[in-house]
Parts: sequence; C-alpha cells; structure tokens
Amino acid sequence: MSIRVKILGSNSAAPAHRRHHTSQLVNVEGHYYLIDCGEATQLQMARFKIRPQKINHIFISHLHGDHYLGLIGLLSTMHLQGRQASLNLFGPKGLSDIITLQLKHSETVFNYDLNFFAIDTTVNKVIHEDDFITVSTIPLNHRIPCSGFLLEEKAKKRRINKAKIPADFSVRNIVRLKHGEDILDEKGALIHANSDLTFPPKKAFKYAYCSDTKYDESILPIINNADLLYHESTFTEEHSERASNTFHSTAKQAATIALKANVGRLLLGHFSVRYKDLTPILEEAQTVFDNSELAIEGEEFILTDQ
Amino acid sequence: MSIRVKILGSNSAAPAHRRHHTSQLVNVEGHYYLIDCGEATQLQMARFKIRPQKINHIFISHLHGDHYLGLIGLLSTMHLQGRQASLNLFGPKGLSDIITLQLKHSETVFNYDLNFFAIDTTVNKVIHEDDFITVSTIPLNHRIPCSGFLLEEKAKKRRINKAKIPADFSVRNIVRLKHGEDILDEKGALIHANSDLTFPPKKAFKYAYCSDTKYDESILPIINNADLLYHESTFTEEHSERASNTFHSTAKQAATIALKANVGRLLLGHFSVRYKDLTPILEEAQTVFDNSELAIEGEEFILTDQ
Repeated sequence: MSIRVKILGSNSAAPAHRRHHTSQLVNVEGHYYLIDCGEATQLQMARFKIRPQKINHIFISHLHGDHYLGLIGLLSTMHLQGRQASLNLFGPKGLSDIITLQLKHSETVFNYDLNFFAIDTTVNKVIHEDDFITVSTIPLNHRIPCSGFLLEEKAKKRRINKAKIPADFSVRNIVRLKHGEDILDEKGALIHANSDLTFPPKKAFKYAYCSDTKYDESILPIINNADLLYHESTFTEEHSERASNTFHSTAKQAATIALKANVGRLLLGHFSVRYKDLTPILEEAQTVFDNSELAIEGEEFILTDQ
Repeated sequence: MSIRVKILGSNSAAPAHRRHHTSQLVNVEGHYYLIDCGEATQLQMARFKIRPQKINHIFISHLHGDHYLGLIGLLSTMHLQGRQASLNLFGPKGLSDIITLQLKHSETVFNYDLNFFAIDTTVNKVIHEDDFITVSTIPLNHRIPCSGFLLEEKAKKRRINKAKIPADFSVRNIVRLKHGEDILDEKGALIHANSDLTFPPKKAFKYAYCSDTKYDESILPIINNADLLYHESTFTEEHSERASNTFHSTAKQAATIALKANVGRLLLGHFSVRYKDLTPILEEAQTVFDNSELAIEGEEFILTDQ
C-alpha cells in the first residue's frame, strides 16, 4: 500500500522566494485528497500536471488566507471544466459562509454538488472514511480555530498462500484466516492465522499533517507512530519568541514533537519569508530528529511497501 | 505626460496556457493604479518586480472571481509587509462584504486604513480624482453588475516661453496666459494665449478599460477619442453566439467599438481558454481596426509625449 504526499506550496503568510501558500496533494493508491489550498494552488497543479478533477476530497485546516485563498478559484475551475462528480469539502464552519457569499455575488451555481462538512477543530474525531483511508482531525494550538489531519490507510486482510492451502479447505476457514482468526482444520487441529498458510497484510501507512500550531504535546497520542509527520516549522530557535507569540513552531520544536511521537519521518514546512535559504531550518531539526526533510514544492514524499 | 499600462493577467475565467486571471497596473507619471486583481496577481507582481506598496488605488470591475480573487491575498501581503499608507479600494458593494467576512474569520485587522468606495455600475460618474488623473465608471453590459473605468490625465496648463516674455510682463498676466486666457499687454494690445509667448500644454492621455461586456454601443460617448481602449475580446466571431449568451464580446465586436469610438489604439484581452494561439483574435480585430494589439502578460502599453 502507499501514501504519496506532493508538496504544492510550503511558504507561510505571503508567497516569497518562488515558494507559495500552503497546499499538499495526497495520493492514496490513485485516490486524491487535497489538504489546504492557498492562493495559486490551481496554478501549481497546472505546473505539476495535476488534473483538478481527480480530487474528490478537500480538507482545509483553518481560515488564515495562506491556507484557503486558492479554494474558490479551484472550485470555479472545476465547474468551468464541466465537473459532474460531487466534491466533499471539510473545513471550519466559516468557510462555507465565505464560499456562499462569493458565489452569491458572482451569481454562480456550480454544476456539481459541493458537500460541505464543518469540522470541530477542538476534538480528535473521524471526519471521513472511504474504502482506502480514514481521516481524523488533530486539534492544533493556533491563533484561530485550526485542525490538523491524520490520514490512515485502512488495514488490509492477511493474504492467502494458495500453494499451501489444502484442497479440502473450506471457504469459511479461508475467510477466517484472512481476517486473522485462528481456526481448527478439518481434522480438529489448531491452525494459527499467522501460520505459513497466509502472508501478512500489506502495510497500512499513517500520515499526520499539522499546520499551523505552536509547540503542543497534547497531539502526541494522536500522531504517535505516524510513518510521516508534516509539522509546521515557521522559524528557527533564534526567533522562538516570535514563534510563540504568533502561535507557530520552530524547527527544533517540530523535531521534538517528531521524536516524542516516534514517527518515521518528519517533513518541515510553512517557512517564514525571512528564510530564503532553508538550510538552517533543516539543520536545526536534524540536531533533534535525524530523519527530517524539507517540504520542497514539486517534491513527492512516498510511503510504500510495494 | 504619460500613461503606462502593464498587463499582469489577460485570460478569462480560468488560468490557462500560462495566462492568468485579469489584472493591469496603470502607471501615471510614477503613480500606480491597479485595475482588477484576479488570483495570483501578487505572484505576477513579483514576477515582474512590481512592489505592491507602490499602489494606492485599486479598482475592481465586477465580482466574477477571475477579476478579484487575488485581492484579499494582495491586501494581506501589504499588511504583512508593514504597510502604513492608506489604500483606496473601489468596487461593487458586495466586495466590501466579502473582504469583511474573510478578515472576520482570519481575525485580522490590517495595520493600514483600507477605504472602500462602492461604485454604481449603472452610471458614468467620476469616482476618483487626484492631482494626476480623474477616474470615472463606464457602465458595461454583463451578466452581473460590471463597470469599466475611464482614466483621464488632468489637463496641464500652457507652458511659458521664457525667451519671448518681455521683462516688464506682470505675474498676473503670466498666470492668465498659462491658463489659456487671452490678455491685454502693458500697452493695451491683445495677446492670444496660444501666441508664441507660450508653448501648448503637454498632452493629457485617456485610457478606457472595458471588461467584461457584450457588444454595447451605449459606451461610445464615454470612451470617445480615448488614446487607448482595452476592450475584452473573449472569442472570435466563430463563437459569436456563445459570446452573446455569456455577455462577452468577439474580437470583431471589440474592434467595431474601437472604430466607432475613434480611439487611438485597441488592446484586446480576456481571452477564452479555447485559444492557445491568440493570432486569430488579433487578425479578426485588425480586419476592422488596424491599430489592434494583444494584451500579452508582462508587456507594457505606453501613451506618452515625452
């Protein structure tokens, strides 16, 4: 199984140094989920040859402009390109009011169903589930209501080792083995589900997206053991006071969260415009958590066992 | 005197073919006026090395997204960059509601004064006047309330030819000559203002911006004799029915308006995404009005007598 995170934008506040407002496209086995949608996200999609109509779910973390100002343009382009498929949009309640007001003044009625789901940014709760993933909210600690998102691939069943299954084995027993249950065979002997009659299921990955937030250990139980954690790192420690005042994190703080949550990899982003060169941010994080990387636009961060 | 029109975006509806949503920066003798502000206008400014803080007046023609979705991002960037100077914003009434709602949800209070002036899109009326230009509305014929803008440089006074002025000439008479008044000299002889004692004033230019609109001759008296007319030309005649149904114009129609209004030059823009190559639009316009040009992004169209 696999999760692929494509960075469309990773700058904070205002675009600068050829970096754009925040947006990420998450591809789970060919199914596309957009997280945040800053200004010009649709242009970034065109640049990276991503077709907007592939996306059926959009998640907006909060209502600072650098995380959603590209949304109405993207939704409009989907409409103009003749989209028919419904689209599910998750975000703070006010987002719906903003979109509704804009559509009212442009006298536009989309030719597809836009289903809006208001999220509660104060709790950890499943907000979406389909055949591939479960998405839940991560309450973040920011100036305005803000939620991260935890995307978890659904656990798959064990896989039958056809070469080893006796010919007289019942279908019922095969199904039980797939579900990981121990069974009795036709002669009454115990067979463990994880015997050589089965292969283990493919790995289900876990991606945690945390932007924007100040350092807050209350998220640790939620993001624990994530294979990949995106955690904002707007500043370096040199500006830790500014980070705290603006409810943002430093690279060291992001790395500390990664370490304490025992994640596999850390992805740093939401860079302040003051950093043209991002090396100080990366190096600071790596002093705490070696497996840190920069969310560079156009790059894809891949979790896969295939 | 001079008016310089820099094209920041000239596509209609959705960005395509590396063309962006509509926006133009008008430079009148070093004073900057922004007309329309589609998504990513601030990125186009960065691309063309234009500093947002130079702009003190913004005019929004109507509330279709491709003409204003970049505004809130630009205003926010001005705020983040520490703008102190007040900014005057002109547009349909609803624009203020949209901005207010977005700022409410982001809990942002700009550190500069944003003065909003609601425009009446149904009348031709002066909406702004400063030492350099007068701006008035041009009622356009579109699906939703929409206004073009007429920018007219202020007429300057005649210039005194110092070499010809007699030494005993009174200051009062010099001032009157500058204002174009005929005077009597010290001996009681009539001197015409346009005699060789003065040079004519420098030319004051007139720029008419008309987007979006269907073909409508009612604008002719307003834009008559403009030195430069920007008129939308979303389609070619092949799609004249679609142009009419969507309240847009063809290149031929734009050129016909240019011809009948006796303008100096015609600038074509607001191109449909169906045209990757814009040659058909230019050629169609030139069959009617030879002095037609395409509003290519990054190009500057200059009116000057200097």
